[in-house]
Amino acid sequence: MLAPELKKKPAMRPFVSAAKRFADGVDTPRAFLEQCLAEFEAWESQVGAFVTYDLSGARAAADRSTARWRAGTPLSSIDGMPVGIKDIIETADMPTEMGSPLFAGWRSQKDAACVAALRQAGAVIVGKTVTTEFAASEPRGTRNPWNLDYTPGGSSSGSAAAVASGMISAGLGTQVIGSVIRPASFCGCFGYKPTVNALNRQGSHDYQSQSCTGILAASLEDTWQIAYEIVARVGGDAGTPGLIGPPHAPAPAQPRRLVFLETSGWSSASAAAQAKMREALHRLKSAGIEIVTRNEDSMIAAIENELAGAFALSNKINSWETRWFIRGCRDRGASKLSRGMQERLQQSETLKLADYRAALLERARIRALFAELAAKCNVCVSLSAPGPAPAGLQSTGSPQFAVPSSLLGTPALSLPLFEVDDMPLGLQVLGFANEDAAAFATAAWLRDHLGGV
Amino acid sequence: MLAPELKKKPAMRPFVSAAKRFADGVDTPRAFLEQCLAEFEAWESQVGAFVTYDLSGARAAADRSTARWRAGTPLSSIDGMPVGIKDIIETADMPTEMGSPLFAGWRSQKDAACVAALRQAGAVIVGKTVTTEFAASEPRGTRNPWNLDYTPGGSSSGSAAAVASGMISAGLGTQVIGSVIRPASFCGCFGYKPTVNALNRQGSHDYQSQSCTGILAASLEDTWQIAYEIVARVGGDAGTPGLIGPPHAPAPAQPRRLVFLETSGWSSASAAAQAKMREALHRLKSAGIEIVTRNEDSMIAAIENELAGAFALSNKINSWETRWFIRGCRDRGASKLSRGMQERLQQSETLKLADYRAALLERARIRALFAELAAKCNVCVSLSAPGPAPAGLQSTGSPQFAVPSSLLGTPALSLPLFEVDDMPLGLQVLGFANEDAAAFATAAWLRDHLGGV
Repeated sequence: MLAPELKKKPAMRPFVSAAKRFADGVDTPRAFLEQCLAEFEAWESQVGAFVTYDLSGARAAADRSTARWRAGTPLSSIDGMPVGIKDIIETADMPTEMGSPLFAGWRSQKDAACVAALRQAGAVIVGKTVTTEFAASEPRGTRNPWNLDYTPGGSSSGSAAAVASGMISAGLGTQVIGSVIRPASFCGCFGYKPTVNALNRQGSHDYQSQSCTGILAASLEDTWQIAYEIVARVGGDAGTPGLIGPPHAPAPAQPRRLVFLETSGWSSASAAAQAKMREALHRLKSAGIEIVTRNEDSMIAAIENELAGAFALSNKINSWETRWFIRGCRDRGASKLSRGMQERLQQSETLKLADYRAALLERARIRALFAELAAKCNVCVSLSAPGPAPAGLQSTGSPQFAVPSSLLGTPALSLPLFEVDDMPLGLQVLGFANEDAAAFATAAWLRDHLGGV
Repeated sequence: MLAPELKKKPAMRPFVSAAKRFADGVDTPRAFLEQCLAEFEAWESQVGAFVTYDLSGARAAADRSTARWRAGTPLSSIDGMPVGIKDIIETADMPTEMGSPLFAGWRSQKDAACVAALRQAGAVIVGKTVTTEFAASEPRGTRNPWNLDYTPGGSSSGSAAAVASGMISAGLGTQVIGSVIRPASFCGCFGYKPTVNALNRQGSHDYQSQSCTGILAASLEDTWQIAYEIVARVGGDAGTPGLIGPPHAPAPAQPRRLVFLETSGWSSASAAAQAKMREALHRLKSAGIEIVTRNEDSMIAAIENELAGAFALSNKINSWETRWFIRGCRDRGASKLSRGMQERLQQSETLKLADYRAALLERARIRALFAELAAKCNVCVSLSAPGPAPAGLQSTGSPQFAVPSSLLGTPALSLPLFEVDDMPLGLQVLGFANEDAAAFATAAWLRDHLGGV
């Protein structure tokens, strides 16, 4: 339930659109931050989005940003943007606890590459946001600002909740299964999981092969801008070209043809969620956009069939890749490891290198199949989740709709376009590898055309 | 000069060959360790190979290994092997200082993947071995056991010196330019830099795209076995198949044709080193092996020309990939960063993402060119260094011969086959990507045929 004083809907605070006001001297990053901190004051004690925060440090950083804007020398378009850093990502000035008592107070003594880039671009780091245990399943108490009895989703729980309630304009997240798209959908903010390797992951505990550093933000423009500013300064993962695209968010572009992917989640999606999706597809058809599904195209049907196994295959790959780390945690203190994590470890103990290699080949085969779809449509669309956030804080909800893009290594966006039972629900845009900019352009058009479905 | 009590040549202590003795009960890992610790007692105060060590912990681990061998239940072929871990690689029970006062006493609270695998395989971790500052150029005082006034090479200085002097059977190293092959050559041990990504680097500060976790060891068989046992347990880098090859060292196999690569180092190699190499090539020809060089084959000439720029291109790529980290170090304490590292940072500040992307394409082009050589020979051979270790401890010596395989992402081995002026010098075997096992088979034959050139 909403706390009595919180009988208001959460409202996001987009940043990049304010830049002109900063340049004109009619607004300042410090004033912008104070509005965020007023929301922090109102929400944080109820929502619990942060593990650590440094409000005086943030104010000092915002003052420096204000001075730069006044002097006409902002460091970037996100100079002064209040941001949160998922507590799985290292920061030199704050601990990185990774949602685990095993790392209580732990300090890496460095900024992750993406954090270093954000600082260099002038972003104002408000604090570290709550992650589930090691960015997996065990929740750490954050509540959904739309209804405090509901999960915000995970594993980027804190970033999503803090962005949705206007405490920050954007937060860094990570996704290896559904950890950006799911909480974005449940909290009603924008969520972006890039093409795998497109944002430098060094210094972040998301080192699995299909894991990505992602962004939760108050607008599509903020989302793109953060990604761009990071990549311009520290690139993608070492050895890769990094995110490809223009220095500002791609302009909205009407798609010609969309593939509607049910994914394995459709049959378990709520009737209301299905109705919202159908209504959106209907409106798109009315606008002259061709919608293709598994029913019209056997290649799409084949891909849908492959994606039915996306969760199991992803789990197998992730299990092998994280096993050594979880084992080490168990050896250092089994009592501080969640039961779920211990069970996961136990299941992974039978995995052999040959199983892992076979799983990689299987994933590569599915990726190649999906890549062929690019010739048939601008992007794919689906729900971001089977429905709005489920009640309770014990589970972060189903990742069924989010896992395909994780397995595929392709970009995905969750757009906060739907509302069901007074709770938000995302429309998901699934793009093609290294075509993140095209996905943003289509997403912007969908946002403008479908806003308030 | 040699300390008076050290008027003996260093002698290595191969391990895997002792396994049968352990199985037969005529020797034990604990007794083996004690022989290593006697060398430790004799050498360490002079050589300074270790940053941290835990001899009682090592003895306890060796006792547990002894019990397993007695019970007929060793964990692997390297159960009981005394090893050192380059101090750029994380260990849960010891600090990881990375050769920098900025990380004095720092604890990651976890084992790197390769360390976790070694423990699981029963290896006895004696301590952390000295690395240059962040595995780059600034030495940290380790001396060459062949002559204490000479550099052991770097950056894996401590592992090479400790293996060469018999304090451990093997040590983990890392290489992004020449940090395994060079110290192996200077200290007279076996050195192995695998195909890039073939050994899991998680938890090691060698995250650059051409960086590799490598091995310095007392025998080729030990070298292979360690690599195999690591990969069997934790694989290669996430998303890659990891090292491919049999569960024990490939048997020696006589090559049919070898390419002799001069590399950019040949013209600066000492006359004595060149003479040793020529003598070896002559003996190989006498054994019926065809030797091809740039003079006989225009493709080889083209590759030699490309490799002339290997150091500059590698430096550009590494500079971009490490810049964010070095910047963070400077911001935390410029006075604790070596002058060389500060200069390197300054040079890298002009690099743009576009430069980096262009450098990656250039590297990919050269890799593709080199891959075509595989059809023409079993492996390539070259010197491992322009000569024996240079005098003095201020520089770790020239990496000119080691850098090609780093740029190429291909496996390389340094074999301690030459001696010049009473100092060791390596013959380098340069294999092809993912053909590490074939390189080992040829290397074993070369070792047997050329031993004591």
